[in-house]
Amino acid sequence: MRFKLIFLFTIFILSCSETVPLSSKNELNFGIVIHGGAGTMNRKDMTPEKENEYRQALEESITLGYKILNEGGTSQEAVEISIRMMENSPLFNAGKGAVLTAEKTIELDAAFMNGKDLNAGAIASVKTIKNPITAAIKVMEQSPHVLLSGRGAEKFAEEKGLEIVDPSYFFTQRRINDFDKIKSIESSANVSIKESEKEFLSTQRYGTVGAVALDKHGNLAAGTSTGGMTNKKWNRIGDVPIIGAGTYANNSTCAISATGWGEFFIRNVVGHDISALMEYKNYSLEEAARIVIHDKVAALGGDGGVIGIDKNGNVVMEMNTSGMYRAHINSEGELTVEIYKN
Amino acid sequence: MRFKLIFLFTIFILSCSETVPLSSKNELNFGIVIHGGAGTMNRKDMTPEKENEYRQALEESITLGYKILNEGGTSQEAVEISIRMMENSPLFNAGKGAVLTAEKTIELDAAFMNGKDLNAGAIASVKTIKNPITAAIKVMEQSPHVLLSGRGAEKFAEEKGLEIVDPSYFFTQRRINDFDKIKSIESSANVSIKESEKEFLSTQRYGTVGAVALDKHGNLAAGTSTGGMTNKKWNRIGDVPIIGAGTYANNSTCAISATGWGEFFIRNVVGHDISALMEYKNYSLEEAARIVIHDKVAALGGDGGVIGIDKNGNVVMEMNTSGMYRAHINSEGELTVEIYKN
Repeated sequence: MRFKLIFLFTIFILSCSETVPLSSKNELNFGIVIHGGAGTMNRKDMTPEKENEYRQALEESITLGYKILNEGGTSQEAVEISIRMMENSPLFNAGKGAVLTAEKTIELDAAFMNGKDLNAGAIASVKTIKNPITAAIKVMEQSPHVLLSGRGAEKFAEEKGLEIVDPSYFFTQRRINDFDKIKSIESSANVSIKESEKEFLSTQRYGTVGAVALDKHGNLAAGTSTGGMTNKKWNRIGDVPIIGAGTYANNSTCAISATGWGEFFIRNVVGHDISALMEYKNYSLEEAARIVIHDKVAALGGDGGVIGIDKNGNVVMEMNTSGMYRAHINSEGELTVEIYKN
Repeated sequence: MRFKLIFLFTIFILSCSETVPLSSKNELNFGIVIHGGAGTMNRKDMTPEKENEYRQALEESITLGYKILNEGGTSQEAVEISIRMMENSPLFNAGKGAVLTAEKTIELDAAFMNGKDLNAGAIASVKTIKNPITAAIKVMEQSPHVLLSGRGAEKFAEEKGLEIVDPSYFFTQRRINDFDKIKSIESSANVSIKESEKEFLSTQRYGTVGAVALDKHGNLAAGTSTGGMTNKKWNRIGDVPIIGAGTYANNSTCAISATGWGEFFIRNVVGHDISALMEYKNYSLEEAARIVIHDKVAALGGDGGVIGIDKNGNVVMEMNTSGMYRAHINSEGELTVEIYKN
């Protein structure tokens, strides 16, 4: 009789452990991953001082998000604060320090998505909003729409009391120099383009910042912010504000933020495809991200990378370029900061 | 020996039949499906004359596309010609006859995608391009970008020699009346909104035109064009120009064009999700479209519909609204035109 009771009790305990809700199972498995853009990164072009500056900025940014998560805050708050810090830094192609368009203006795109309710917000082609990621979140929370653009998006941000700056705030000498160099290559293009110039041009397609996080409540979130592609024309919008392409989050699978040659990420619906491979084919986050970046994006001739975190806290930082500014902090507070692929 | 030869010959023929390329297998299974928008459609509001006008316009539009396909033209040409005809008709919310924004302007969005090479083009928030679908195709063919917006997209269309019209061209009295009615409901909204007014408002979220086609070469294509949502604010962009949401084509699965409450179609990445369910879970086009429209879009509170055609010529016209203007012609030239759900 006693053995039978112990046996039944054991069965009871075992069956309970199977029904532990995800949120409590994930109590410890929180985490955050950020990126500051993927692209052509050569060690020879990088001074130790410059490398240190990037590493420090990435560490500061991710630590802000990690603290929020560690104190029980939401993945939304963590993603927002980490991205804001990178938008405010002149090092990254987002907010201050963004690249110049063909008209020598700066046009910013950003998006945010919550995995819990698939709610999302995004803005495209704005010139005066200091922190585009916060505007994207406001679109999600305080408008009936998902994507606002241009002057309309700026008016929305003004109405909601967000910080507005003069367009000149975003300009940095480094990006003006890059722009001038492109224009001079363009004007001599009917003669010939040198190999070194081709290499330079290929570095100008990239640059974005993004963050994905899993909080202690089991909720995923993804955010991305960018100035787009140097010398972009005709109010081009890239993959960043396209929900499903550059930014996607779904509590049943993962949260993804992409960086790279945006057109190829749109055509491959990168964020949603990684999620679909996990949901419909039971692939791991890593397997799904590898297939999409190396087989699908590369097959069309595109390049770039993604960061992702799944509902169990597994992370991926995958790229088919020579590097991606990236960092990760797991539940135990262990920090990883990397720049080059290998 | 003779039997052995016959046996080997049979094996040879069987193995050949397995390697018949898809394009020749599909030689006869071409087809086209179009829609002129989904939404709340009550038989009581529809006069026989009005219904006839819609049926006639749908038949004219789809016949243009069908002829192209029947003569061996491409799915791209068929989709473009059918959509252009609906953009030029004042009956549909695309091109002439589009709905008004909150600023009493007309802002048009359109997208096109080829299933063969996953190439795509789209434009958003344009006010002067007579045929937005043609501009979307030009973005795909003659720019390095996928999505252009606002004044930039208009400049691109001008440079490429597309037909430019004065913004007043798109205005129709019917849409001005709808706009005035919404504004009057809005201004009295602090008193109370009557049931009939709520019903009217719900009819103002929809309206789009789209076409999907499979040609004799086995290539799929999808296109969509719209004026968006009446009274939309802040340069809102809907699901139409979002590749993967309102418009998607992939030769390995299907071509999809959506119509409905755009925000929910973006959050559900509708077009790509239908494709992913087919590719990764082997669902039929019909099963996949039903799940996405009835379970996923509806679960978030959204409504609308999709049309789709798969690589074998199977079609779907699925909605969770009371109707969708739609038509289909199959390889045998059989025409179906429908408005109501049942």
